[in-house]
Amino acid sequence: MNEEMWDVIVVGGGPAGLTTAIMCANRMLKTLVLEGGKWGGLPATMYPNKVIPNYPGFPEGITGIELVRRWLRHVRDNPYVTMKRERVVKIEKGGIVKTEDNEYHGKTVVIATGTRPRELGIPGEAMFNRADKGVYYYVTHREKFIDNVVLVVGGGDTAVDAALDLVDLAREIYIIHRRDRFRAMDENVKKMEESKNINIMLNTELEEIRGKDKVEEVVLLNNKTGEKKVLKVDKVILAVGLKPNTEMFTELGVKTDDRGFIITDSYQRTNVEGVFAVGDIVKGAFRLLIVGAAHGAIASQKIYEYIRKPYWAGEDEK
Amino acid sequence: MNEEMWDVIVVGGGPAGLTTAIMCANRMLKTLVLEGGKWGGLPATMYPNKVIPNYPGFPEGITGIELVRRWLRHVRDNPYVTMKRERVVKIEKGGIVKTEDNEYHGKTVVIATGTRPRELGIPGEAMFNRADKGVYYYVTHREKFIDNVVLVVGGGDTAVDAALDLVDLAREIYIIHRRDRFRAMDENVKKMEESKNINIMLNTELEEIRGKDKVEEVVLLNNKTGEKKVLKVDKVILAVGLKPNTEMFTELGVKTDDRGFIITDSYQRTNVEGVFAVGDIVKGAFRLLIVGAAHGAIASQKIYEYIRKPYWAGEDEK
Repeated sequence: MNEEMWDVIVVGGGPAGLTTAIMCANRMLKTLVLEGGKWGGLPATMYPNKVIPNYPGFPEGITGIELVRRWLRHVRDNPYVTMKRERVVKIEKGGIVKTEDNEYHGKTVVIATGTRPRELGIPGEAMFNRADKGVYYYVTHREKFIDNVVLVVGGGDTAVDAALDLVDLAREIYIIHRRDRFRAMDENVKKMEESKNINIMLNTELEEIRGKDKVEEVVLLNNKTGEKKVLKVDKVILAVGLKPNTEMFTELGVKTDDRGFIITDSYQRTNVEGVFAVGDIVKGAFRLLIVGAAHGAIASQKIYEYIRKPYWAGEDEK
Repeated sequence: MNEEMWDVIVVGGGPAGLTTAIMCANRMLKTLVLEGGKWGGLPATMYPNKVIPNYPGFPEGITGIELVRRWLRHVRDNPYVTMKRERVVKIEKGGIVKTEDNEYHGKTVVIATGTRPRELGIPGEAMFNRADKGVYYYVTHREKFIDNVVLVVGGGDTAVDAALDLVDLAREIYIIHRRDRFRAMDENVKKMEESKNINIMLNTELEEIRGKDKVEEVVLLNNKTGEKKVLKVDKVILAVGLKPNTEMFTELGVKTDDRGFIITDSYQRTNVEGVFAVGDIVKGAFRLLIVGAAHGAIASQKIYEYIRKPYWAGEDEK
């Protein structure tokens, strides 16, 4: 047990968590950031080399990995911020945060645990979704897809971006979506439609993934006609949405919607005193980097008010 | 009259207005941005050379003017964005926006009019607040203050930043605040206290500014003791807060608080259909660049949903 008292414990070192730390340090609050995986969250893991076109301030675009590098420069060597690579297993009332090996105490806790790719739960998925056996949830190493036949599943930005990302590398790309139109950015859907080796199949679902040691074929269902079809493919990318990382706060009593996203007020406060939530774990958060960053800024101000109680605390809420 | 129909008319070319345009362009919405003054809003006018320490992505800090330059690069030459230097005089229901010379029609309107420095309303202020006669609301040209005796009025970040900004240039700086402690960032208050030529006077108010052709002296009141004091000064900087730019939407019927800040839902929608508000004009907006930028991102998504009506519109609000 660690008896040190932190002003703020940030659970999660993704964009929103790091921004919260940047802003709390700026306000001279003693801040601990805990991250069990990679620093930088989804932009660092799911799309490190993707150019983010609309982060204001980078008109030529910026890659996820470069943004993460910049955020880390904000907090590293900052005397108010301590960063530890430890997986949080439980957050308890009273500012207690338990990791696999330690227990930390904070005056406030910020939940910045974000989301992870959702599994589809179909036959074959669990068999092949590890050790490069052919099922992926995002593209990190593009070179693995060279000259492959690739099936992308999903209709949102992640799916469409994955297809476009591989267009020059893969031999043939199939993208299927269960609905009759995509929800991704119009501009990118258009690019996809104009591309020569992307085959678009709407109203189509993935039923099964088959193969011996690795993915060999998939079974597709047209949900309008009921027709089934077997397609030979080398790789499958499942981009069917994200689910919230809720495991560490299920017993804390924070209000969530029925999918597990945390409900906050417009100041990032949860219903539990001293507990805040920022970034993609927040209901209705839009999953945009710039929004997560703003959450961090807002939360830090309210944390400052909560801890330091200046005369102007809550003035903006009148 | 101009019969062209815009998807979005953004009123105001400050940070939040420009970000809204960046994000709307990204969604292929035909966007008109109207600005009567300088592009870039307060960071461009009030603190062009101030280093902003906490805009995530710029760990070494970035000046207001450089951020504005980068935002403008996002939108200039973008086929979806048209920028016009015209002062908006009235916004009417049905997406009608009137400037001094023209009338524009939009499917949606985004109010991004921001704030401007508040006047104190004391004797002498109106006489000297123009043509470099000695009363300022912010510091732009620091060289004007070389070897001067300067009075700064205010207790927030703008006041403290102004004092710190001049510390090496002015002969003597007095900073007065009507309360018994500052509300600016602790770190900067500390810097100010440690500085040799900044004199801090709390519980002190400015009653009058005197002089012939330019500022010569000020009358100060200690609001605890009732004692008055005349001080010889060359310049006065009034940093006593900001007030919302509301003139162009008083008759539109958007709900505001009693100071004029617009009340929106968490998706930047006002109570008037098709009218959104972003940035510092929004009640409780924290006046941070990163928050204004996030407003732009959020508004653009809801504008897209409002105009294009995709099947997933409003899904995140459930």
